[in-house]
Formats: sequence, structure tokens, C-alpha cells
Amino acid sequence: MRSAGRHFLQIPGPTNVPLPILAAIGQPTVDHRGPDFPSLTLNVLEGLGRIFQTSGDIVIYPASGTGAWEAALVNTLSAGDTVLMAETGHFSTLWRIMATRLGLKVEFLPGDWRRGADVGAIESRLAEDRSGTIKAVAIVHNETSTGAVSNVSAIRRALNTAGHPALLMVDTISSLGSIDYRHDEWQVDITVGGSQKGLMLPPGLSFNAISQKARRAAKNARLPRVFWDWEDMIAANAKGYFPYTPATNMLQGLKVALEMLQDEGLPAVFSRHDRAAEATRQCVRHWGLEIWCAEPAEYSSALTAVLVPENQSADALRSTILKQSGVSLGNGLGRLADRVFRVGHLGDFNDASLLGALAAIEAGLLASGMGIRAGGLSKAIAVLNTDGPLQAAAE
Amino acid sequence: MRSAGRHFLQIPGPTNVPLPILAAIGQPTVDHRGPDFPSLTLNVLEGLGRIFQTSGDIVIYPASGTGAWEAALVNTLSAGDTVLMAETGHFSTLWRIMATRLGLKVEFLPGDWRRGADVGAIESRLAEDRSGTIKAVAIVHNETSTGAVSNVSAIRRALNTAGHPALLMVDTISSLGSIDYRHDEWQVDITVGGSQKGLMLPPGLSFNAISQKARRAAKNARLPRVFWDWEDMIAANAKGYFPYTPATNMLQGLKVALEMLQDEGLPAVFSRHDRAAEATRQCVRHWGLEIWCAEPAEYSSALTAVLVPENQSADALRSTILKQSGVSLGNGLGRLADRVFRVGHLGDFNDASLLGALAAIEAGLLASGMGIRAGGLSKAIAVLNTDGPLQAAAE
Amino acid sequence: MRSAGRHFLQIPGPTNVPLPILAAIGQPTVDHRGPDFPSLTLNVLEGLGRIFQTSGDIVIYPASGTGAWEAALVNTLSAGDTVLMAETGHFSTLWRIMATRLGLKVEFLPGDWRRGADVGAIESRLAEDRSGTIKAVAIVHNETSTGAVSNVSAIRRALNTAGHPALLMVDTISSLGSIDYRHDEWQVDITVGGSQKGLMLPPGLSFNAISQKARRAAKNARLPRVFWDWEDMIAANAKGYFPYTPATNMLQGLKVALEMLQDEGLPAVFSRHDRAAEATRQCVRHWGLEIWCAEPAEYSSALTAVLVPENQSADALRSTILKQSGVSLGNGLGRLADRVFRVGHLGDFNDASLLGALAAIEAGLLASGMGIRAGGLSKAIAVLNTDGPLQAAAE
Amino acid sequence: MRSAGRHFLQIPGPTNVPLPILAAIGQPTVDHRGPDFPSLTLNVLEGLGRIFQTSGDIVIYPASGTGAWEAALVNTLSAGDTVLMAETGHFSTLWRIMATRLGLKVEFLPGDWRRGADVGAIESRLAEDRSGTIKAVAIVHNETSTGAVSNVSAIRRALNTAGHPALLMVDTISSLGSIDYRHDEWQVDITVGGSQKGLMLPPGLSFNAISQKARRAAKNARLPRVFWDWEDMIAANAKGYFPYTPATNMLQGLKVALEMLQDEGLPAVFSRHDRAAEATRQCVRHWGLEIWCAEPAEYSSALTAVLVPENQSADALRSTILKQSGVSLGNGLGRLADRVFRVGHLGDFNDASLLGALAAIEAGLLASGMGIRAGGLSKAIAVLNTDGPLQAAAE
Repeated sequence: MRSAGRHFLQIPGPTNVPLPILAAIGQPTVDHRGPDFPSLTLNVLEGLGRIFQTSGDIVIYPASGTGAWEAALVNTLSAGDTVLMAETGHFSTLWRIMATRLGLKVEFLPGDWRRGADVGAIESRLAEDRSGTIKAVAIVHNETSTGAVSNVSAIRRALNTAGHPALLMVDTISSLGSIDYRHDEWQVDITVGGSQKGLMLPPGLSFNAISQKARRAAKNARLPRVFWDWEDMIAANAKGYFPYTPATNMLQGLKVALEMLQDEGLPAVFSRHDRAAEATRQCVRHWGLEIWCAEPAEYSSALTAVLVPENQSADALRSTILKQSGVSLGNGLGRLADRVFRVGHLGDFNDASLLGALAAIEAGLLASGMGIRAGGLSKAIAVLNTDGPLQAAAE
Repeated sequence: MRSAGRHFLQIPGPTNVPLPILAAIGQPTVDHRGPDFPSLTLNVLEGLGRIFQTSGDIVIYPASGTGAWEAALVNTLSAGDTVLMAETGHFSTLWRIMATRLGLKVEFLPGDWRRGADVGAIESRLAEDRSGTIKAVAIVHNETSTGAVSNVSAIRRALNTAGHPALLMVDTISSLGSIDYRHDEWQVDITVGGSQKGLMLPPGLSFNAISQKARRAAKNARLPRVFWDWEDMIAANAKGYFPYTPATNMLQGLKVALEMLQDEGLPAVFSRHDRAAEATRQCVRHWGLEIWCAEPAEYSSALTAVLVPENQSADALRSTILKQSGVSLGNGLGRLADRVFRVGHLGDFNDASLLGALAAIEAGLLASGMGIRAGGLSKAIAVLNTDGPLQAAAE
Repeated sequence: MRSAGRHFLQIPGPTNVPLPILAAIGQPTVDHRGPDFPSLTLNVLEGLGRIFQTSGDIVIYPASGTGAWEAALVNTLSAGDTVLMAETGHFSTLWRIMATRLGLKVEFLPGDWRRGADVGAIESRLAEDRSGTIKAVAIVHNETSTGAVSNVSAIRRALNTAGHPALLMVDTISSLGSIDYRHDEWQVDITVGGSQKGLMLPPGLSFNAISQKARRAAKNARLPRVFWDWEDMIAANAKGYFPYTPATNMLQGLKVALEMLQDEGLPAVFSRHDRAAEATRQCVRHWGLEIWCAEPAEYSSALTAVLVPENQSADALRSTILKQSGVSLGNGLGRLADRVFRVGHLGDFNDASLLGALAAIEAGLLASGMGIRAGGLSKAIAVLNTDGPLQAAAE
Repeated sequence: MRSAGRHFLQIPGPTNVPLPILAAIGQPTVDHRGPDFPSLTLNVLEGLGRIFQTSGDIVIYPASGTGAWEAALVNTLSAGDTVLMAETGHFSTLWRIMATRLGLKVEFLPGDWRRGADVGAIESRLAEDRSGTIKAVAIVHNETSTGAVSNVSAIRRALNTAGHPALLMVDTISSLGSIDYRHDEWQVDITVGGSQKGLMLPPGLSFNAISQKARRAAKNARLPRVFWDWEDMIAANAKGYFPYTPATNMLQGLKVALEMLQDEGLPAVFSRHDRAAEATRQCVRHWGLEIWCAEPAEYSSALTAVLVPENQSADALRSTILKQSGVSLGNGLGRLADRVFRVGHLGDFNDASLLGALAAIEAGLLASGMGIRAGGLSKAIAVLNTDGPLQAAAE
């Protein structure tokens, strides 16, 4: 049976794709070797540079985000190389598993999944590593499973302080275009991104932004690669073409997405996410529920994971909310299965859609007898009605 | 500058068009004289019969709703004929003006715009009219300007009680597909409908459902007509064609719209509207604002008009809400200009979108310093969370 | 069963709608009373001025083309007024019937349906009419049923020569945006247009371009009218709004259509149609079939009607071509039923789509055993390959 | 400046995407972990089975076709393994390069790019290889660069005759859904497919159909893989989910594409391609140009590569045709650069669109002064008008 009304895709990605982007994707497929194609390629590469905040190389894969993780590793490393990773949640764990399966050695700094990467531990480990065993440090900027953000700028300073030559790789799949991120300023070597979150596209494209140091490292990296190879891409892209068939219709959508972000302005985009996140948190606190991320300085502006009361099922709650109100929420992943629900507040949204999602959650919590305090919407509204910066309200 | 997020079109029509309907409208234009066209025509005529609850004739105009008003009049009346109308608000007033300009004589039963048509007054007037001067009684079922519903069934009984032969014409432009309406059971002679409200289409189609009595009356009606002529339409439609070019792409959308309504089921559709309306009213009352419709039995399930406090501007409020939250509300029309805002809760919506709209209104009311009581959303949620019928809650 | 491949809608309207226009129509419905709406209205009115080649008033009806015929008549005439019309084919006959049914008196200059209006006969009749009985001359610019174009400029001169005050009304439904047409230069009083031909939109919008003289005439015209009334429209349009709900999604498409025509440039658009028409005619002649329009100077650049051999069925041929190749052709209308097929070469097409349609027709003619000479495509290609103007080739 | 008319994408893929498929792709992105998602996954997997003609496992990658080549290799082989390949053209050469770069040893049976793989040479080489050095035979079914088809069934027989245990890998990227292909019957171990050709989708999905033998081989294959790993996919797919984010909107389109192919019926689809190919070849021969594929038994039904006369530029011709008629043709690849143009006749097309493309090519050849004989269309039409099977006409 049909569900009336428009679905609210409030998972922390894929996000609600704006209709002009869907329309662009739905325009006819073009000739990727034709004379008009290079202007599309060059246009989106330039626009992506503004989003990654880099003037360096960017590679666009016709593949979803997991592929860009693999690309970062196989372009720069050789079997047996050591990578330093930080356990910030489910996705950092998956990246670690990938690295291990690719034949890399991973040192995994333990974490409790409730905060960002431990910068002090990273710094200590790097300081110890006099011989340069560690070839790369790989961090998830925004842990989509937990709603905690790692401090990439501080990690870069840790590398610099230690004088350590390791490459810095950062997964920004769920932060890019939602949370301020600066590839060049933070001297990140490989930034991994995807289309289906802050970029407001369906899944199907992923990205590597690449430093010159990373390109040099790639020359000696021995993991086999063809599909993911940067140099083929960069060479073909220089003329606006691709070494193999690109995902042309997605690129058509990407062009529109980049124009939209440019039109709104990145500072406005980030501020919109910050306010939505704070509104969500105030609402959650009013309900009497616990925000899973334990470190306020590391709260994510892209999503909030919320712990349900003991003996309650987060998944049953999500199912109720979907049926009752047409809102999809993110499930708990890995060890958080059934314990948290995750509210995505990223991509294309406005106050009305955010408030609608929060109200639907409150309705679902009440209908599920979760013993919450009603009235959370008033708190969310108060945050959104705040003029000017939110710093006071954020505490 | 772009506004992020999905626009909420919460005016009382046009309504938010479901994306599958937009997609169907956006499919290529077909040959309206081709061999496949009749199946489309006959399909939508049959589906419309279910919506109007009639087994009689329905005419589809490639024109917006005002045209179907004109069609009802010019097909059945002659210059100088008298029509009995009831002043229920702005749209009944416009229909009266139209009738007058077409050369008809209108008796306009006065009203205060805060309730449905006065059935007693209609009955009295009909009883007086022994000579049958009144040729038609024309009623707006759901007054889109005020949010009050007229009791068509009772008006039919009034006609029957008086034994009066006048035709009964009913404008259901903003009720059809949202509020229970029964063309055959209530012996309505001409029902006027439009595409852009409960039928969830863009504006551009309008309808007359026609009784046999109305068709007989048309034979002697002398107002000139060609475009609006029923008989040309009915004759051509019998074979699945049209006497002149129909709005083919809108018909493609109509087919999908009718399937969606069929799939949800009319009782479920009406109940969804009833619950949304009650949730809205409880919210409004909590805010301390006045529902413009003064008669609870006549509250509209399709929209709620809300009076703003003295000395406040409803239009400034609407502008604030649109800018702040991306929600469009209906303005006050005619004598209600700037005094009320109208919340559309009709067509394609779910709990999340309704709650989002209400929360955005609360945010706007607070931001505008309208002195309301915060917390209306809890009331709306409580209504939507109510199991079973709402009758108790409605009081 | 599905037919593979893209349907070729080669009827003389509705025409193949470009996909960006369909995409614009398929974007969400907006608030027609909202703050952003006037810019859309004013934009399309300005663009239409360029197409009609007028700086005067244009009215946009949310109704298909037949409505704009009715509007031209009811805004300017009174019951019993005389209109001079010329029998150029099926559509002029339909317009005559409409006028008669509206209570007007029509003088119908006879014609054989194989040429444009007889300018000499018009001039004679006007010269006779010393008393000014004739209130309007109403001409179909491009007879969609026959493929013959009337010389509007010459008819204007006839009016001027006779010093006759009659209004000049011209139906350009199937010529506007395809064949050069100049509302102001030719001093036309009311030009009737529609969306679904040269404007490359689906059916659902129609237009009146209106001279000041026509607006003055409207003041004394007594045919009843409300939906079609110009003054309500012009008054509301001045501020970018409409007196009743406009066909908003069609206006979204119209904006894009006007941009496309502007981008290509009207002279290029007309030349494209001229070449396609000449290519079609050369092809038809090669086949040994007769072009229905008997007057080369009046050949339509928008469509070509082709006579099938005696004892053959044009409709059976069209059915074969549709099934075999996916091409829809126009049928013979009125007295031409089953005797001609009509090839639409108007709106959005290029050489490949025109040639594909012609080749499909040749295939169908051969498959139907119509005894034609194969090889017509070579003639069509030769025309399209001609550099520069076509005047020599056209003879 | 805009080009009027719809673009004809007559490259041998990506192909013209049917509008209902584009519309499905343009519907909102859904929750790939939500309760409704498995039905989509299982539906498309089942439909793909019918297309690959297999009841075995199929893996869907959110990546373009080149990725599925890599997947076939990395799932089944280990560094240093030997693969037997046949030089049939540009794409077989690229696959060879890929294999080499992945650390495999390729034996490349030489070819002249004008015919399919040399089955005799394969059989001899396999017979020699008593020690089983060759781990896989990898063949391009339809060489998109040349228009020659390799006989996969005969190659399977060669393997069987030799009693050789090598895996058989076949690239069907440009044949799947266009040319009869039987994964199970021909005992292919890995079939590589893509979305953007016969499946009528944009690029962005690719496939591996996998035999049980291939899955067993994968257990011992040592090339590193994560993104491309079959087992993760097959395990997650069993419940209708994916191990990482799938290209959800493409899957929505795939569902519609598979329904369309099912509705037309695979035999009808193949026959439509066969007839189009024969029509194209007859046309080319009439022009006096040479079909690049030298072996009639191996002519491709999906594309035809045509040699231009000595001293002429195929690329200049393609540019002329694109500008003049809006038709994109495939360029010569690798050693065929500028020497051939490739006409794609695959995916979604009908007689009219094929004939339009051929006519546009004839126009371009004439306009370019290539000294061809005009009139090719008559030959193409004659083929398409042939009732029943084409075997006679094909000689």
C-alpha cells in the first residue's frame, strides 16, 4: 500500500537529493568522448576544488565511497606497509578491515566509539616511530556510526610536531559539504569523499583529493591497481576526458549540486548544519535521552546518534517512526546495533524538514512508550530562532 | 540565492505534487488522436467516477478550476436566470460575481464567512419560491478562503423537502479527494472539481460531474458556449477522444494520481485529512490563536484559517515563515486580507510533513513576537498518536 | 507489449517536447500567489512578446488552444455581429462553427481546402461592406489540416485598402514559433496561439496577443465572458499575478521553451522549418505522391499534407508506419479523412529526426504496396545539404 | 548555442536511455538499509539472471564496466598467473594491459582487429598447455572497437576438447541484452557486463555473473581485493542488502530496464538488433564503403565499424554529422583512430531512429565529399521491410 506524503530520508546519508539535481541526472546520457564533454569534466573538477578547499588534484571515481577508500590505500602503499588508524566507530573499523585484507599492517589505536580520534595517542605513537615504519595515518573525519568528529587539523599538527613523514589520509564521506574541511590548509595527503551525503547526490560517485606528496608516494606504491589508478585519471582529466567510461549522468547532477552549494555559500551551508545539529541535541536532551557522542567539542553537525533507554529496541522505534510518519532514521551499526538511532541532518534540508523529522521522532518515542519527556520541539525551535552564532547555546 | 531544502507548499492548493505524478507529467507528449489514447481517457474517467462517487458523466476540461465554474453555469442556464448562492467566503463571492457577469441573476444569502452555507435560509428561500424562479442552487463545499465546509447533504434534503426543481451545483475544488463527497448519493447535479488540490496534480485540469437532470437542463440552456459544452465532450469521450486538444500530459499525471488514491483507499485518505486537521486545530488552540471557522461541525479537513492577533500582520508572518523555514502558507483573501493565514493540510502529506509545517509556523509566530504559547507541537503529536477514530479529540 | 525506441510524434502538433522543457514542467508546483511568482509571469510575457513580435498585451490562458479562439471572439464581439472568415480547411470550418454557436453571423468565403485564404475575395467583400457590417475578419494563418498558409500581411493590406475598420483576428496555433509571424507589423488585432506546436510544450496553454484597438472594441463587446476576459488578466498580470489559478507547471516549461527559441534565434528557427518542409516536399514528389496544398507560394513550413493514391487508405498507412517504425503521423480531418496523411515538421527537430520520419514513411509506403518510387531520402538529404538559402531548390 | 532536436547517441554505448528509465533513476534516493530495499535487490538480481541466461550468482557493482573487468581478474587469480587472451581489438588490448598491471602474465594471441578470437589458436594453445599453466581464458564477446563477435560457444568447446581446467571469462559489456549470450549453457565462469549498452541505462553499474567453479577458484586467489570481493556481495545480497552503499538510483532504473526487456522478449530484442545491423551493412555497402569486420559470420549486431576512404578523416566526418544532424557516432580507437567511424545500433531504438541515423550519415558523407554513392537508405529500408528471418538477406 502506498504511503502518502514525501519520504524523509533522515539517515546520515544517502541524503534527500534536491529535485533539480534529480532532474539533471535524469537528462539524457551524453557522449563521454564527444566535443562538449570536457567542459562538464573541467567544470565539476573546479567546483570540487572549492568544496575540498584544495587547488590540487581531484580524482572522480564512477564508484561508491568504499571504492575511494580502497583507492587511497592502493595508490600509495605496498603490501606489508603499516598504517596507523584510530578506532572511532564502525566505519574506521571497516576501513581497518579493508586495509588488512589488502595486505597492509594496521595499528589500530583503540577507542570507545564515543569520541573522535585520540590526538595525543597519535602524537605519541608517531613520536615513537623514529624509523618511519608508519607509512600513513588514516582517519575518519566524521564517524557516521557515532556522530563524533575527529580533529584533523590537530592530527596534522601532531604529524608536524613529530616531524613524521607519514601520509595523512582522511575519510570525509559524511562530512564533505556539511562540516568545514580544508584539504590544503590541513595538509591532508588524500581526502576520501562520496557523492551521497553533503553533496546531495545519489550514491555512485566517490573522490580522492590528492597532495603532491601523495602523488610522489604513488610512484613507489606496489599494491596492484588499474581501475583506481590516479595517474590514468589525472592524465585523461587534463583534457576533460576519462580513462574509462565515467558515470556521466551523475556528473550532470554533480554540476548542479556544486552550483547549489556555491550559490548558498559554504559558510552558510556549514552554519545551517551547525544549527540543525544543535537543535537536534537540545531536543534530544529535553526528551531525556542520551547523545551517544560523549565529547561536546566533537559533536557532529551532520548527524546525531541517540541512545535509547535500556531494554528498548532502537530498531523497533525506527520501524514505528517510518510507518507512522514516513521518516527513515539510521540504525545502530556494529556494536551499536539496536542501541542507537541516528538522525541525519545533512545535505539538503531546511528548518521545516528538520523540525518535521524531529517531531516525527518525538511522536514515535511517545507512541513506543519510551518514557520520554514531550515538548522537545520547543527546544529545537528555540535554537533555530536564535539570531546570530550559536556558541552560547551549544553548551 | 537558493533556499536549501524542500519547499513545503502548505497553501490550500495547489498542493505538493507527489514525484511519481510529476514524473508522469514529464513523460513525452503523446498523440491525442492515436490508437493508444482512448485507453488513457477511459481509464481516468473511470477513476474520476470513484473520486466523485458517481456512475454518471464526467467532463474533463483542459483548463483550470475557474473554467469549470463557468462551464457549470453556461451549460445549464440562460441569461436572466436566477441562481441561489450562499455567501460563505471569498470563493462563493467570486462565483457570484462570475454568474452576474455572465448575465445571471444571483440571490446571495448573506453570511459572515465563518461557517458553511445556512441550510435553514436556503430551505426557507426555496419554500417561498413557489414559481420556480430559482433555477439553480450553487454552493461551495469547502470554502478555501475560510476553512468552513457546507453541508451538501442537508442542502439536498432542503431541496427535496421544498420539492424544488432547481439544479444543485457544488464547487468541490478544494474538497475533492480530501473530504468525503458523494455526487450520486447527494443527488448533486453539477459538481465542479479541479486538479490541483486533493487530486495532487498541478493546476490545469478541471471537471464537471453531471447528473442526467443537468444534461436535460442543458438542452434548453441558452448561454452561449462552445469550449465548455458538455455534449461535445461526452460524445467524443465515449470513444476515448476529445473534441479539441486535451491537456495530454496532465492526463498522464491524473492516471497516476487516481491510482495512488485508489491504492491508499478513499476512507484512509479522508481519515488522514481529518487527523491532520484536528492536529492543526489543537496546535492552534494551544498557541492561543483563534480558528477562523466558528462552527466546529463545519471545520474543514483540508485547511485551517487562523486569525492573527489584532494589530499583527498575517502577511508579514507568512513572509517570515517562508524565509525562515521554507513553508508557504495561504494568505487572507478579500476581507480577510492580512488578518488570517491559511494552513493547507490536503493532498499528499504525511505526519512528518504536517508536523514540520506546524513547527515552522510555531517558529515563525515566536520569531514574530506574536505572544503565543509555545509547545503546540505536543498537542499535534498527541492527536496524530491517537489510535482509532478522533471523534472525542475533535471537541 | 512495449515498442522499443523513441516515439516520433510527427503529427502537426502536439510536437515532440524537448526534455529540458519536460523537466521544467516536472519540477514542483509553486505558490502562484507567492513572492517569487511575478518574476516568472513577467519573464514569460516578455519572451512571448518576442515570439508574437509585438510590444502589446498578451494574455495567457490555462486552457488549450480552442479556448483562445473563443476568447478572441467573446472579448470583442456581440451577439449577431458579423465575422468574415475564409474556408481554408478543417480548422477554419471549426472556428466558423464556434462563432455561429456563440451567436455570431459568419460570412464564410468558400475555398477548396488546397490553398490559403483568397485575399482578393476578402478585399472585394470588404470594399462592398460600406456600412461596416463586418466587425471582424478571422483567418487561420497556417491551416493544420491542409498545410496551406494564408497571407496575413496581404489581408492586412486588403483591410487598409478598403479602409475597413473590422478587427483582424488570426489563428497562429500551428505557425507560431515555426513560421515568421508579425503581430505588430501586420497590425493584427488578436492573434491566437497555443503551447503545443512551435512553442514545444504539451497542450494546456493558449494565448491572445491583443492590439489597443481590440482592447477598445472589448469595452463594447457584449458576449458574456469571465474566464476569458482580457481585462482581468491584463490587470493582474501587470503585477505578475493571475486573476485565477494559472497552469503554473506549464509556465515553468514555457520559460525554458522561450529561452531555447531565443537561444537558437527566430530566423534560424524559421529557416530550419523551411528547409525541413522543402526536404519533405522533394521526398514526396520523388515518391510520386501529390502534395495536397496546391499553391507553392502557400506551402506550409510546419506540415505537409500528402494525398495517397486513389483507393488507398491513408489511415491504414499511418497505422502501418506507427507499428513498424514508431512514427505517428497526422490523419486527414473532415473531408480529407483517410485521403491524406500529414507530416508534422515543426517544433523541436533536427535533420536526423526529420530524415528518420521520412524514411519511416517511405518504408511504410513500400510495405503497404502503394506503388511509390523508392529513393525519396536522397532528395531530402540533398535539400538539407544545400548551403545557403533554399529559394532555387524550392521551385 | 542550442542544437534543436533530440540528440541521437549512436555511439556503441552508452546508448539512448529510454525516458521511463531516466524517470526511474530521477526518483528520490531511498534507504539502502530500509525494509523495502531487499525487494528491489532481489527483483533486479532475478531479472539479470534472465538476461545473462544463468541461474547462478550475479554481483552488481556500483562502478562502471572497467571495474567489473578488474573484479573478474582479482577474484580468481594470483600474482604471476597466466591468462590467455585474444587480440580482437582495442578493448581486448586494454583488458590485457589491465591484467599485466595487476601482476598477471598474459599470453596474447595476435589478431588483425578485423574478426573475433581465433578459436583454432586457442584450442591449440590449450592443447599444448598440459601442465595447466593457463589459469584463465579471457575473451571479449563483442569487440566494441571493431564490430566483430567472438564465438564463445566454440571457445567453450575448445576448452572442453582440450580438457583444460582454465576459467573462461567473457566480457559482454557491449553485447549483453543485444546479442544472444548464454552464461550457463556455454559454461562461462565469469561474465562481465555493464549497464550502459544493451541494458539501456547510463554508465555506473557493472556486473559479474559467476559460476560455481569460479567461486571455488576465488577461495585460492591471492590478488588483494575488498571493493570487488564477490563473497561479501553474495552474502549480503542473499538478504537483499549490499556490503557497502549501492548505486541505489541506478538500481531503480535497472528494475525498469529489466521489465522493458522482459516485456519485449529477448528473442525480439535480439532480432531487432540483427535487422538493424543488416540494414546498416547493406546501406554501407551501397555507399561503397568497407565494413571493417572482415568476417561476415562474426558481424556484430550491436555496432558496425566503417572504414572511410584513404586520406579521409573519420573524425572530421563525425564532427560534420554531429553539427549538421545531431548524431554522435563512435570514433576509431587505438590503431583505428580517424580511420573508422562506428555506428551503434544497440539498446533502445526503433526503425525510425535507426533510419534517421543512417540518413544523417549519408548526408554527412555527401557533404564531406567522400565520393560515396547516394541512396543507401533504400537498401536499409528494404532490409527492415523484409518479412520473417533475414538469413538470405545477410549474405
